[in-house]
Amino acid sequence: MHDHSAVKPLSIVIAPDSFKGSLSAADAAAAMADGARDAGLALGRPDLRLTLCPMADGGEGTLDAIAAVWGVEPSTMLTVDALGRSRQARYATSADGRTGLIEAAESNGLSLIADAPPQPQRADTFGVGLLARQLLGQRVDEILLCVGGSASTDGGTGLLAGLGVRFLDAAGAPVAPGGGGLARIASIDLAGLHPHARAVRWRIAVDVNNPLCGPAGAAAVFGPQKGAQRHDVAELDAGLAHLAAIVQGETGEDMTDRPGAGAAGGMPATLVPLLQAKLVSGSTLVADAMGLARTMASADLVLTGEGSFDSQSLGGKVAVAVARLAPAGCPVVVIAGRVALSPADTAASGVTAAFSIAGGPATLDDLRAHATERVRETTAHAVALFVHSRTFR
Amino acid sequence: MHDHSAVKPLSIVIAPDSFKGSLSAADAAAAMADGARDAGLALGRPDLRLTLCPMADGGEGTLDAIAAVWGVEPSTMLTVDALGRSRQARYATSADGRTGLIEAAESNGLSLIADAPPQPQRADTFGVGLLARQLLGQRVDEILLCVGGSASTDGGTGLLAGLGVRFLDAAGAPVAPGGGGLARIASIDLAGLHPHARAVRWRIAVDVNNPLCGPAGAAAVFGPQKGAQRHDVAELDAGLAHLAAIVQGETGEDMTDRPGAGAAGGMPATLVPLLQAKLVSGSTLVADAMGLARTMASADLVLTGEGSFDSQSLGGKVAVAVARLAPAGCPVVVIAGRVALSPADTAASGVTAAFSIAGGPATLDDLRAHATERVRETTAHAVALFVHSRTFR
Repeated sequence: MHDHSAVKPLSIVIAPDSFKGSLSAADAAAAMADGARDAGLALGRPDLRLTLCPMADGGEGTLDAIAAVWGVEPSTMLTVDALGRSRQARYATSADGRTGLIEAAESNGLSLIADAPPQPQRADTFGVGLLARQLLGQRVDEILLCVGGSASTDGGTGLLAGLGVRFLDAAGAPVAPGGGGLARIASIDLAGLHPHARAVRWRIAVDVNNPLCGPAGAAAVFGPQKGAQRHDVAELDAGLAHLAAIVQGETGEDMTDRPGAGAAGGMPATLVPLLQAKLVSGSTLVADAMGLARTMASADLVLTGEGSFDSQSLGGKVAVAVARLAPAGCPVVVIAGRVALSPADTAASGVTAAFSIAGGPATLDDLRAHATERVRETTAHAVALFVHSRTFR
Repeated sequence: MHDHSAVKPLSIVIAPDSFKGSLSAADAAAAMADGARDAGLALGRPDLRLTLCPMADGGEGTLDAIAAVWGVEPSTMLTVDALGRSRQARYATSADGRTGLIEAAESNGLSLIADAPPQPQRADTFGVGLLARQLLGQRVDEILLCVGGSASTDGGTGLLAGLGVRFLDAAGAPVAPGGGGLARIASIDLAGLHPHARAVRWRIAVDVNNPLCGPAGAAAVFGPQKGAQRHDVAELDAGLAHLAAIVQGETGEDMTDRPGAGAAGGMPATLVPLLQAKLVSGSTLVADAMGLARTMASADLVLTGEGSFDSQSLGGKVAVAVARLAPAGCPVVVIAGRVALSPADTAASGVTAAFSIAGGPATLDDLRAHATERVRETTAHAVALFVHSRTFR
């Protein structure tokens, strides 16, 4: 039997996440590409077509990763941080001008206000709204919003205020920004909302399933790391519940128990009902932004990877997101620092096979110190097995 | 594109060595088979045809491994140990009666005389000769001789004496057995040699490249572990050199510098020139005895494995021996506790890909304690990649 693919160049898409603590996604992809080339040379198949697509999970570094794939430089504009202080922040627009990308932490990031005393009830997302306003002014069709690392618990009211929405108290006066004021909101005035705000598609990268309120909610779970004391948590939680009731009154939509509504200080609580924003996983948002499904459409093999391929990976980390977007029938191989999923769970996730970069007994420090070389060698072995299996007989 | 093999059952031959310190070859093969079945089930290919062929390297356990594949029980006969003391020893004959198998250490093993004071100049291979005589009496066509673990440094003179050869001194009197008498040999009387001894094919499993004499020779390198003091080493080395000269006088063949002639106390020094014995690696001898090449002839994938896949593997350990016998175009995958060969060296050895059973940071003790499970899981991932690559698109 002779297989036609023996003479057709094999196309390999390489789309890893970073290996936390050792390799950036770009470095991991480069090491995997080197390994694939090693395998191609060893097997007399120097014609492998490699497409590198370093991924991100919606967290820190996502803006840079997507801008790199888009082939654009991030833009910079003046906005404010979570405490309203002026700040230069970056955002990106795709080369065709149709998609805008915001990494919210560029404005409302917790690390940006580490120099000030914690003000968990004051911190807001107004600056993120200014970034979004800029993109609306550019007439994008879609806004991708990555929300990790936020300092605020304002239910997204600051962002909407930045787009012209007014949150009014019972007397019709605007409520002060920040989560601490949510309980006083009596009505929402959408008259000033930016005219394009509801015309664009909003997608929010959410990597937690927490509900808006209660013991698993935004205030209780994430408030403390933003500096909230016990009484702050109680007031913020009550404020978010009140906001949800007001929003439900306006839209009919109850966000209280929606999984993911508790992400980023409850940002989805207003953006989903008022702007029809869609919640997606960070990895899916990144893959979509990069056009990864299209890139993979004609792939013969997809390589992905991450620091640890484990039960958390099933929740939508990069490797599994990549596997879900890979074309039917295309093997997907994970290269990881640690492989802790059984073969059955691996298969159920859509991943064909996963290999650890450990070549034998080794410490975590060993693996980190030699990560580039280990990723390269492990990839070479896996690609060799794929190419050989596909090429011969 | 649709591949015919999508509907043809895939045949996988599983031929690992033992994983020293953790798994017997049979246990390793069983764990690999479990992993292959896991992969088949996960991919909806429960039709994998698995053939288990636990291997050995010519060392301890080889007799049992080959007898198991032959489907015979080893026989037992009365012979002597390296000091001439009576001892029951095992040997095997293939089911068709054509091939005999001797594990020399069953008679002249160093561990069998651990109860006596070391007598490195006295120890001999006479008992091995009695085992061979038994097989000659059965009219086998071929004798496979595994020689590891020997106590003797007699240049094989004891074995030949057991087959009727007489080693005579200048006065025509028989020289006493053992390496200590070699220097007094003046002639070799082959008149009494068993009539079939030269009609059978002799193959000796040799896993060292040491020459017969000198600083890298049988006495200098292996003598001390047999109890030889410095003066013993000098006398044994001189004795082997003298024996080689006598044999060269009889046959014209100079064994002094032949790689491997220093194995097993110099046994090849007489068996090669006088009986036309062939030196082979232990792994090759075992693979031949098992008919592994025939078993693998129609394999779609070959799995092998060993404790450590490293530069020593290139010298003819099991994995590389298996790879060399695998049919052209058939991928060969090594599963190992440790993988220390580069992808290029791996490819040059004939192995397609090698994967460590380490799933991440782990100690040697961890890997040993969970060897069965780790071998099973690693095999499952590798087989999944193979099956998927072969089945789809």
